[in-house]
Amino acid sequence: MNLTEIRQHLTEKKYDARLITRNNLFLGQDTLERENLILALTGFSGSAGTLIVTGKKSFLFTDGRYEIQAARQVNPEETEVICDASLTDWLQEHFSAKIKLEYDPWCVSIREVLQMKHRLPGLRLYPKTETCVLEPASVFAHELQYCGTDTKEKCALVLERLRQKNCRACLLTAADSVSWLTNLRSDALPDTPVVRAMALLRDDTGITLFADELSFPKDCPYPVLPLAKMEKELAAAKDLTFAVDEQRTPDAVRRIFEKHAVKTVCADDPCQLLKARKNKTEINGMINAHLRDGTAVCKFLCWLEHNNEDLSELDIVEKLHEFRKQQPLYYSDSFPTIAGVGANAAVIHYQPTEETNAPLAKNTLLLIDSGGQYFNGTTDITRTVALGTPAKEMKEKFTIVLKAHIALASARFPKNVPGAVLDAVCRSVMWRFGLDYKHGTGHGVGCFLNVHEGPQNLSPRSFSCPLEENMVVSVEPGWYRENAFGIRIENLVRVIADDQLPDMLKFSILTLAPLDKRLIDKYLLTGEEIEWVDNYHREVFRKISPGLTEEEKSWLEEACSSL
Amino acid sequence: MNLTEIRQHLTEKKYDARLITRNNLFLGQDTLERENLILALTGFSGSAGTLIVTGKKSFLFTDGRYEIQAARQVNPEETEVICDASLTDWLQEHFSAKIKLEYDPWCVSIREVLQMKHRLPGLRLYPKTETCVLEPASVFAHELQYCGTDTKEKCALVLERLRQKNCRACLLTAADSVSWLTNLRSDALPDTPVVRAMALLRDDTGITLFADELSFPKDCPYPVLPLAKMEKELAAAKDLTFAVDEQRTPDAVRRIFEKHAVKTVCADDPCQLLKARKNKTEINGMINAHLRDGTAVCKFLCWLEHNNEDLSELDIVEKLHEFRKQQPLYYSDSFPTIAGVGANAAVIHYQPTEETNAPLAKNTLLLIDSGGQYFNGTTDITRTVALGTPAKEMKEKFTIVLKAHIALASARFPKNVPGAVLDAVCRSVMWRFGLDYKHGTGHGVGCFLNVHEGPQNLSPRSFSCPLEENMVVSVEPGWYRENAFGIRIENLVRVIADDQLPDMLKFSILTLAPLDKRLIDKYLLTGEEIEWVDNYHREVFRKISPGLTEEEKSWLEEACSSL
Repeated sequence: MNLTEIRQHLTEKKYDARLITRNNLFLGQDTLERENLILALTGFSGSAGTLIVTGKKSFLFTDGRYEIQAARQVNPEETEVICDASLTDWLQEHFSAKIKLEYDPWCVSIREVLQMKHRLPGLRLYPKTETCVLEPASVFAHELQYCGTDTKEKCALVLERLRQKNCRACLLTAADSVSWLTNLRSDALPDTPVVRAMALLRDDTGITLFADELSFPKDCPYPVLPLAKMEKELAAAKDLTFAVDEQRTPDAVRRIFEKHAVKTVCADDPCQLLKARKNKTEINGMINAHLRDGTAVCKFLCWLEHNNEDLSELDIVEKLHEFRKQQPLYYSDSFPTIAGVGANAAVIHYQPTEETNAPLAKNTLLLIDSGGQYFNGTTDITRTVALGTPAKEMKEKFTIVLKAHIALASARFPKNVPGAVLDAVCRSVMWRFGLDYKHGTGHGVGCFLNVHEGPQNLSPRSFSCPLEENMVVSVEPGWYRENAFGIRIENLVRVIADDQLPDMLKFSILTLAPLDKRLIDKYLLTGEEIEWVDNYHREVFRKISPGLTEEEKSWLEEACSSL
Repeated sequence: MNLTEIRQHLTEKKYDARLITRNNLFLGQDTLERENLILALTGFSGSAGTLIVTGKKSFLFTDGRYEIQAARQVNPEETEVICDASLTDWLQEHFSAKIKLEYDPWCVSIREVLQMKHRLPGLRLYPKTETCVLEPASVFAHELQYCGTDTKEKCALVLERLRQKNCRACLLTAADSVSWLTNLRSDALPDTPVVRAMALLRDDTGITLFADELSFPKDCPYPVLPLAKMEKELAAAKDLTFAVDEQRTPDAVRRIFEKHAVKTVCADDPCQLLKARKNKTEINGMINAHLRDGTAVCKFLCWLEHNNEDLSELDIVEKLHEFRKQQPLYYSDSFPTIAGVGANAAVIHYQPTEETNAPLAKNTLLLIDSGGQYFNGTTDITRTVALGTPAKEMKEKFTIVLKAHIALASARFPKNVPGAVLDAVCRSVMWRFGLDYKHGTGHGVGCFLNVHEGPQNLSPRSFSCPLEENMVVSVEPGWYRENAFGIRIENLVRVIADDQLPDMLKFSILTLAPLDKRLIDKYLLTGEEIEWVDNYHREVFRKISPGLTEEEKSWLEEACSSL
């Protein structure tokens, strides 16, 4: 259905609106472009958005990161873009006490439904499931040498957590939880090797997988049933008491539980936190993957330095991909590379296309945000590079972003601190200069899994899930002047114990590639900040130079020399 | 009943436990010592605590501020002190799936009850109301010259907010909301001039007050009924739709609403936010009150400098009170003065008593946290003063606390930032040095009302209610070495717009008294921090010196000279 057809349908049914999300039944960011209903209906391709279609108009709710992009992509006569607003507040303001809202219960979490119901007592929800046809894909094992812990041990950990909640079963609905628990991966998505399946875990019979269109390896030790059989299996387990993660479980599952009177208890998906705490094998893998990824990025930066005539953004994307795929254990990129020149870089999640592809102009900035999936780790790095001679303002703003980056990367903090506080440690440096950025400061990163993973998150709204030892997060403050240029400095870091203070944590940097010194105004940095940059660059040179050609090595030596 | 009797009662009734709070039906901190059931039962006098009495033992839940104090005050054989833990988690861990819990529904908020029920599906609550006999007190008008806005205008603002929620009535249960809305005050409590009454506000008939034992002025324009008549009045208004603040309303009111099928909608008490945004009269009053309070404090500090032989903590309390009460418009202190020497100052909310009263020893620190209620404003200030020659560690730690104080006092921040973020701006400076403090960084302050007021709050757990222009908060980082010394530096600040950046806010300092320069290690401060201290001291001298004697003036001149 297109927007006009949905509107007619709403009028016929006498509904006030239809709520449309961009995700499928796996709720996360694990959606193929062709499955993204919001893209199909409005043209908006951003990774965060909810669409409300009413009889008259549609309204796209997204966040500040996508403000410019949404304005570029949607037809304003058909769809109004609303940034950083609460959907429920808006519904409350725009409808009378009673609202009839149609939705797909497989594409909205239980939490979202409960919150809407709580805030909008007059809300009536009408379920209408859209069939999501998944594409065929292959599943393969993630070897123990890379994942470090076998499924049996992982199941025991998960079941122990369930027992603490007096539960004996759970339905894992998040694709990364299922992939982590089963040590399986798949090629269903171009950048994220998750297995898009759901898993029933019972303390008596173990794992049963539910999936459509996936071909599992012959030695897969678990029964695999079609998704359509899930309801029957859940009903059969009704007396076991299920732990239900309301935030990660589609509302349709709640409806199944209610229909069959399955006993449930609210609890976070136990795999999420267990997966975020990397084991020793994963940590070593992540360190190793960053060494190889850093080598690819340094080779690319050296190449760029010597070959930046007549290039376009898409050439950058291609060349960087070439360098990465030469590295051992490379599997795929971890997300579509962002390479933005000048004004394009001010679009926070810009990806160059044939239509937008810009040449590498002189005297501006090139922002490159990219990453790789290696069998033993996932990477994500952003570097902002000067093309020609950068303007004074560019250097000034880059240096302020760098100060913010250093403030967090070098921070020390107690064990129970939520992500919002660490976000503030970084962001408040920008505020001092009257600056800010409309995106989070960092996100969790999986190990040969999602490049954005929870539950840890460094954003202004992240009040739960404190960081723990051996979690991996990004540190990526930025600054963007619309229609002019964009700056972001991103490293991945791992959380480690502070050896001098037992109750405190700090970061150890994983990412290895130089920061463009041509963009650093040394006189805006404190002595401690200069020392941080010099130490980091020494480390980059020490670790990366052995894998480079002589030409590359001498470029890196200069790039990493003291400020 | 004492603990033994409660235990017998629980055994007879076959209940697992009784939940006891320190507050009465007004839920806040507005409780007289003799009304504090936790004090009566356990000896613990702190302002935060919940007691769980079981058949065998009792458990006092409090926070880190009171760790040392609770350990000093309670009998460990009878009562176990549990700091910074979640009561519901604890109940879940310590009881089987079903818990029978007795409670006083007038002393626990709806929110607390709902949260417990949500987290503990097996919880059964048994209400048992303890009669709270309030003492007689007089109510008087807070003149328009001090409060700035008449009740009619305030009612219109509140009713407008109710209308936005499709409500026509509310029951105001917070004493400060009622006092603010009616422009009434009372002498019921020694330090807080709130009227301990509840107010029914209807959009047709206006305000009805419910109170016991209060004598209202003859010209009080509202009907005043005994609290026992409230149920009937609420039942009579059942069709108006009430806005109910679950956090500030006793669970007993929810029971009344349910019994009479009164229509309700969840919404914050609208007075709280309106009250926190001071009007022009209140801001001018607060500025003026701080000028007078600063004069009293500076006179006291000068006196202390010249008369610190043979003094005790209680002498300090008395002398400071003497200087304050000489100031025009003084009404009372705003809380019992904390004056702690040496190890006593490491007890965060210490108040000297005849038993603990310590002499002003040499070569240690004196921490004084005090404030005044003036008819046109409320103050709260902490200064840490060197007695004799401070040790190197004292100077170092004082200077680090000062750096944290300056980081927040001089911060700039966007309009939508929650308190936890501003707390982190301050606290993360301490973390850099491996230090922390077990209390919030700041609290809201009323205008001739509670010295601790919401909804604004600068604490690690304050994720809602961003600061707004003309709110008043304290900035008070500290550091405490148990059994040794305590440091806290507290000023009140008011939130103002940043004249250069329309979307950003900053602070304007209200408090006027010098910081003890003998405790500042200049070499630990940056150039900007030194400038902040010198500017602040210049301002203190400029504003306070005209009200001092020649002797005091020359002392202040030295105290405020450049670092």
